[in-house]
Amino acid sequence: MLVAIVSLLALILYFVMGLQVGRARSQYKIEAPATTGNPDFERVFRVHANTLEWLPLFLVSLWLFAAYWDDRVAAVVGVVWIAGRILYMTGYSKAAASRSTGFSIQALAVGVLLFGALGRIIYLAISGGGV
Amino acid sequence: MLVAIVSLLALILYFVMGLQVGRARSQYKIEAPATTGNPDFERVFRVHANTLEWLPLFLVSLWLFAAYWDDRVAAVVGVVWIAGRILYMTGYSKAAASRSTGFSIQALAVGVLLFGALGRIIYLAISGGGV
Amino acid sequence: MLVAIVSLLALILYFVMGLQVGRARSQYKIEAPATTGNPDFERVFRVHANTLEWLPLFLVSLWLFAAYWDDRVAAVVGVVWIAGRILYMTGYSKAAASRSTGFSIQALAVGVLLFGALGRIIYLAISGGGV
Repeated sequence: MLVAIVSLLALILYFVMGLQVGRARSQYKIEAPATTGNPDFERVFRVHANTLEWLPLFLVSLWLFAAYWDDRVAAVVGVVWIAGRILYMTGYSKAAASRSTGFSIQALAVGVLLFGALGRIIYLAISGGGV
Repeated sequence: MLVAIVSLLALILYFVMGLQVGRARSQYKIEAPATTGNPDFERVFRVHANTLEWLPLFLVSLWLFAAYWDDRVAAVVGVVWIAGRILYMTGYSKAAASRSTGFSIQALAVGVLLFGALGRIIYLAISGGGV
Repeated sequence: MLVAIVSLLALILYFVMGLQVGRARSQYKIEAPATTGNPDFERVFRVHANTLEWLPLFLVSLWLFAAYWDDRVAAVVGVVWIAGRILYMTGYSKAAASRSTGFSIQALAVGVLLFGALGRIIYLAISGGGV
């Protein structure tokens, strides 16, 4: 249940990033279907797009970590991912160079979830004598 | 089982949108790897891309609503989402301004699923005395 | 358990494609937030982006095929998808025309999983007398 709540909170943050793209569209006068033409708009657009790029990595790893290992640990690491993504969003919206810290935090969180889940599943398969 | 069918139908629609991008590539002579250069192509490209952007919001919310609340209601709202996406596709393919109605319908459907699921999980956690 | 391992391996490949976009950014001097400007960069970018576009089709179909039909068959077809994606990556990185073989293999794998899952669920619904 904890990872379900964390997933929905992550999606609400992602939804907010989408709203900001809409707002930046009218602010910088970038008419659909264009997605380029002004670096200030493009940074806001890339915050949303990059988060989409990482969502499959995050969501699948989060749920497999929770299913095969520990729901509570998965949820805590998931909250770290969300915090990293908020930092990434606020940093990148200001300047491209300010996106690194938040990006590294969320990448580390995904790494823990992905390799934790994979390691645990392989361990269970070996120790249990089957997959 | 109902949300499984709805998910696969939504993915088939999304797949059709991808086929239309391929067709628009040759029609408007936009050679890969380019994704810009002609607004008529870009609108077809954005129909597919925007649907991808919303798929994680839709799919995760659909399944959590079904798991924690009601499979049948989730499936019905899922069908509304698909209908909104079809309207969005046919509208946006013609003109950027015609994308609003379908977009609003699908956004509303996702809102019902996402906040319905989140509200229900929090309610269950509180009334059940734990998560 | 098998489809969990296949999912994580697919995500690791997708993660590697993301790393290659980062490397291509510095190699071809495409500063964030730009994602265009050099066809050599754009091909590497599109390998990653196109794989993201197909991940929902692949992951949802893989798990539903495994859940409603056969975990082992799903895992084998999933490995075929990964192989097709590797071929697509190595081909497309060199030239746009070299992306077709790998693309067709992975599309076929998704088709088997998606329509296999859908057909099986409908069959179960009819033969079981309900959904």
